[in-house]
Amino acid sequence: MVVGILGGGQLARMLALAGHPLGIRCVVLDPADDACSAPVARHLHGAFDDRVLLDELADSVDVITYEFENVSLESLRYLSSRVPVYPPVAALEATQDRLDEKNLFRELGIETPDFLPVSSQEELESAVGRIGLPSVLKTRRMGYDGKGQIVLKEAADVAGAWEQLGGVPAILEAFVPFDREVSGIVVRSIEGEISAWSLTENIHADGILKLATSKPHDPVKPIALDFATRLLEHLDYVGVLALECFQIGDRLLANEFAPRVHNSGHWTIEGAETSQFENHLRAVAGVVPGSTEPLGHSVMLNCIGEMPPLASVMRIRGAHMHDYAKEPRSGRKVGHITVRTADADYLRQVTADLCDLQKSGCR
Amino acid sequence: MVVGILGGGQLARMLALAGHPLGIRCVVLDPADDACSAPVARHLHGAFDDRVLLDELADSVDVITYEFENVSLESLRYLSSRVPVYPPVAALEATQDRLDEKNLFRELGIETPDFLPVSSQEELESAVGRIGLPSVLKTRRMGYDGKGQIVLKEAADVAGAWEQLGGVPAILEAFVPFDREVSGIVVRSIEGEISAWSLTENIHADGILKLATSKPHDPVKPIALDFATRLLEHLDYVGVLALECFQIGDRLLANEFAPRVHNSGHWTIEGAETSQFENHLRAVAGVVPGSTEPLGHSVMLNCIGEMPPLASVMRIRGAHMHDYAKEPRSGRKVGHITVRTADADYLRQVTADLCDLQKSGCR
Repeated sequence: MVVGILGGGQLARMLALAGHPLGIRCVVLDPADDACSAPVARHLHGAFDDRVLLDELADSVDVITYEFENVSLESLRYLSSRVPVYPPVAALEATQDRLDEKNLFRELGIETPDFLPVSSQEELESAVGRIGLPSVLKTRRMGYDGKGQIVLKEAADVAGAWEQLGGVPAILEAFVPFDREVSGIVVRSIEGEISAWSLTENIHADGILKLATSKPHDPVKPIALDFATRLLEHLDYVGVLALECFQIGDRLLANEFAPRVHNSGHWTIEGAETSQFENHLRAVAGVVPGSTEPLGHSVMLNCIGEMPPLASVMRIRGAHMHDYAKEPRSGRKVGHITVRTADADYLRQVTADLCDLQKSGCR
Repeated sequence: MVVGILGGGQLARMLALAGHPLGIRCVVLDPADDACSAPVARHLHGAFDDRVLLDELADSVDVITYEFENVSLESLRYLSSRVPVYPPVAALEATQDRLDEKNLFRELGIETPDFLPVSSQEELESAVGRIGLPSVLKTRRMGYDGKGQIVLKEAADVAGAWEQLGGVPAILEAFVPFDREVSGIVVRSIEGEISAWSLTENIHADGILKLATSKPHDPVKPIALDFATRLLEHLDYVGVLALECFQIGDRLLANEFAPRVHNSGHWTIEGAETSQFENHLRAVAGVVPGSTEPLGHSVMLNCIGEMPPLASVMRIRGAHMHDYAKEPRSGRKVGHITVRTADADYLRQVTADLCDLQKSGCR
C-alpha cells in the first residue's frame, strides 16, 4: 500500500514514520528543496499544480491525502479523477474559506461565535454595529497561525481596518472571552465508524500553539464529539479531523476545523493506544482505525525557532523528543516534546519544566 | 548526530525509525540490494570488508554500532581506529565464539550449562563421557536461529556427529531440561548507568523465536540483572545487551548473549516507556537512556515467511503491526506483531489469537 501526500512537512514526516511499521509507504509532493519528510518518504520535488508531477503521484500511489489546507482545489479535483482522495475535496473546500466554514457550522447546528461577511470598509462598519466590540476581522482565505487577522478592541481600531487587512474578502467574528481553547481530534473510517481521542486543551502564544494537554474524561468532550460527528457525517469524511473550539462555561463554540492530522493531536503518538498519524493512514488506506484510548496523561510543547539540546530534553522524566530535522528559523515549528505519565500531579509539575526549556532554545 | 550501523536489516530499520524523532540519522552498510532499512536510512551498498565503504562510513558518522554478530572483527577494529564503536569490539569478539562466550560466563561467575570444547570425534566421545546425554553439539562460530547444532539424545547419535556438523571447532553443552527460556534486555550508558527492561519469556519453534512475553515483576529478574551487570561492567559496555537464559526451578543458566538490540526486546516499542531501539541509540550517542519501565503487559509474535493481511491483524484489539517490508521467503523473519494491554487475562486470550494468525500467513 502506497499513500500519496500533498505537502512534505512535519505532518507528512510523522505520517510516513507511522506508515513504515504498517507496511504503508508514503510519497510526498512538495516544492521545498529540504522537505523534512524526504528522509523517510519518496519526495516528488515540484509545484502542487505541476500536471506532470501530479500524474506521477497518481501513478505511484493507491490513495492520496494532504497535510495542509492551502492545496489548490483544482489539483485535488484533478487527482481525485484518477485515484481516491481522502479526506474528501469538499472538506478541504469548506476550510479554505472562513465564511463557508462558519456557514457550514451554522447549517449543521454547530454553535459558533457570531459572524458576518465583510467585503468593504462600509460592510465592516455595519457589521461592527451588529456584532459589537471587541471583535476580530479575518481574511476569508489563506490565514493560519494567527496571520491574516486584526483584533478590533475599540471604535478607533475600526477605521481603515479593512484596507489594513489587504482589502480582501473578510469575515468579522465576535471576540470570544473564552475560558479555554480545546480541540476534538476524531477519525472516521471508510465504513463510517467514528472514534475520538481525549479532548485536548490548547494554549497559544503569539498566535501559534504552544502547549497541548490531553484531558481524559473531560466533561465537554461529548459536545465536541457531537459537533465533529455532524461534520464527519455531512461530508462523508474519511481520515482524521481536528475541530478547534472555544469554551465559555459549559458551552463550546466552534472556531475552525482542519481536514487533516493536527498539531494539537501530536501527543497521541505516545499518549494514546493508536496515534492520529497511524489512524489517518489506516482510515485512508481502508483499514479499520485502532483504539483511540488514552495511555495516562500527556502534555506536548511545541519547539519554535530551534530545538533545545537533546540531552536537556532527555533529563526530563517521561519526555519524548520529536525533532523534525528542520533548519532553525525564528517562528518556525521545528519539533515538539511530549511527556506522558500516569500521574496527574507530575503532569502539572513537568509542564512548568517544559516551559523552562523554551528559555534555553525551545521558543 | 549521525550513527553508522553495520548491517541494514530489520534491526537497523527499527533503530533508524527510532532515531528520526530524536534528530539522529542512521547510515547503514549492507551488501544486500534490498536492505529493508534503506527506505529510512542512507544505505552504503557493499561488503562489510570494503575499505572504501568503511572509510566512507567512518567519514559520514559520529559513532558506529552493529546490528548482527557476524561482522568481521578486522573491519570493526579498523573502524574503531577512526571513530568510536559501541558496543565495544571485545563484546562482539566474545559472542563470535561459543567457547569464548561460555568461558567468559564462567570467569565472571555467571552460571551456565556444563560445556567442553570439541575439536575431533575423539574429543566429542570423551566429552560425552563427562557431560552425559542428552547433550548438544554446536559449532563454535557462525551459528544462529538453531542452525549449526545437533542434539545428541542417545549413544547412536554420537557416532559421526562431529563430521556431520562440518568437522569444525565445536562445543558440547549439557542439554538443559529447562522450565522456560528468558531474556534479560539491559542498557548501559557511556557514564556506566545500567537499566533493565522487564524480563522476557521466550517460546521458540524450529529454532526461531516465535513468541516473546514481557514479565513485569518476574521473581528471577534479579538473577538475570546480576548476570548481565557482570558482563556489562567487565566489558565496559555501551548500548543494549540481550542475555538469553534457561530457567530450571529458581535457577538461571546463561545460554548466550547478543551485543545488540534483540528480537526478544521488540515488545519494548509499545510496551515500555522507552524502547530498546531508542535507548541503544541514546546510549551510543552519549545521551542518557530513558526509563525502561513497562507499560502494562506485552506479547510479541514473530511473522515468519510472510506477513498476515494488515486488516486481519488490526482486528485484534491492541495489536501493533511491524512490517519489515521484506520479500516473503520461507523461514524468513518478515515482521512482528505486539499486543500491549493493562489486562493480564486479555494477554493470555490474545496470545492464542496471535498464534491463530500464523495459520493464515504468519508462519
